[in-house]
Amino acid sequence: MKKGLLIVISGPAGSGKGTVNAHLLAREDFVYSVSATTRAPRPGEINGVNYHFITKEDFLHRIEHGDMLEYTEYCGNYYGTPKKEAEEVLQAGKNLILEIEVEGARNVKTKYPDAVLVLLLPPSYSVQEKRLRGRGTETEEKILERLARAKEEILCADAYDYVVYNYDGCDTEAAEQILGIVNAEKCSLRRNPTVAEDYLRT
Amino acid sequence: MKKGLLIVISGPAGSGKGTVNAHLLAREDFVYSVSATTRAPRPGEINGVNYHFITKEDFLHRIEHGDMLEYTEYCGNYYGTPKKEAEEVLQAGKNLILEIEVEGARNVKTKYPDAVLVLLLPPSYSVQEKRLRGRGTETEEKILERLARAKEEILCADAYDYVVYNYDGCDTEAAEQILGIVNAEKCSLRRNPTVAEDYLRT
Repeated sequence: MKKGLLIVISGPAGSGKGTVNAHLLAREDFVYSVSATTRAPRPGEINGVNYHFITKEDFLHRIEHGDMLEYTEYCGNYYGTPKKEAEEVLQAGKNLILEIEVEGARNVKTKYPDAVLVLLLPPSYSVQEKRLRGRGTETEEKILERLARAKEEILCADAYDYVVYNYDGCDTEAAEQILGIVNAEKCSLRRNPTVAEDYLRT
Repeated sequence: MKKGLLIVISGPAGSGKGTVNAHLLAREDFVYSVSATTRAPRPGEINGVNYHFITKEDFLHRIEHGDMLEYTEYCGNYYGTPKKEAEEVLQAGKNLILEIEVEGARNVKTKYPDAVLVLLLPPSYSVQEKRLRGRGTETEEKILERLARAKEEILCADAYDYVVYNYDGCDTEAAEQILGIVNAEKCSLRRNPTVAEDYLRT
C-alpha cells in the first residue's frame, strides 16, 4: 500500500477554502485532519468534528510526548494536529488535508519535508476585499483586521510549494487544480526512487 | 504573456508515446518540436513535419553557433532540436513537447533546468515485451534489441522529473496525467516567485 500525501491547504479569509476543501473531501481518497485545541467550543461546534477539544494540560502533555505533528499558540490558546491520527490516515494510503495557517504550514514542512503546501488565494487583493465586504456579516473593523492579516500571510507565500487561485464561481476548478497537484506529486521521481527496479521486476 | 513550458517526453518502444503525444497535441496550447537530422528521409517522411532534413555541414554550423537546444549523435547521424523555433513557441506561451531519448533529455535539463522531463512507461516490463511481440511486425532479433535498449533506458529513470504509466487502453488517461503535471508545474511557487507582489498590486 502506497502512503497517502500530507497536504497543507492555507487560504486567507475570502479564498473559499472551505468550499474547495469540501470538493476534495467528497472523494474517498481524501481525509480531513481534525485539529486539537484548548479553546472553548463555540455554539454549534462538535467535539471530534470541528475540533478535538482538550485541556491545556492534555495538550502540553501531548507536545511533550511528541504526539503533535505541529502546533501553534494563538490568542492564548493552543491549536495542533494530532500525530497518531495523521499517520494512520497516511499509512492507509489516503491523502490527509491539514487546513492550517502559515506558521503551522512552515512547522509541518520542517518536520515532514514530503508534505505538499498549497496556498489558495482569491484572484486578487481587490477581489478578496470585495468578497469580505460582500458577506455583510462583519464590522468594518473586523474586515480591515482580516485584510491586514491576509497581507501579512501573502508575504509568506514563498513558504508554499504551490499557489492556486480561486476565481469567482470556480470552486470546482480550484479543487481540480489541487487534485492535479496531488496526482503530479505522486508520479514525481523524487517520490518514486525505485521506479526502475519495480519496473523490471514486473 | 506567461512563457510556455518545455516538456521532454521520453518513452521506450511499446510505451505508446506517439498516441499519448497526439492527445496532447490535439490541444491548442501544445506544440511539437520538429527535430533536425542529418539522416536521409525514409519513404513517406516529410521535411518539416517528421524532421527538418539538413546537411551535416549545416548541422555542425548550427551547433557551433549555439543554434541547437540539444543534440545527439546516433549511428553516425546527428539529431537535434532547433533552438530558435523552440524559443519562439515558448515565448508565445505555448508548451513545447520534445520527444527525445534519455541522453538528449539530460542535455536539455542541463541547459534548461526549467524543463519538465517525463518518462512514459508501459505498466511493466512484461507488458512491454507482450506489446512489442504483439505488433507482429518485427523480427525476434529486433525485438530483443529494443527490449535491451529499454532496459538500459529505464535504468536512467532518475534523470527524469516524473514517471507516467500507460496502462492498456488508457492513452487518454496518460495524456491527462501529463497535462496535470504541466498544470501543477505552472502553479508551483518556484515558477511564480512574485506571487505576493502580483497579488497585492491587483
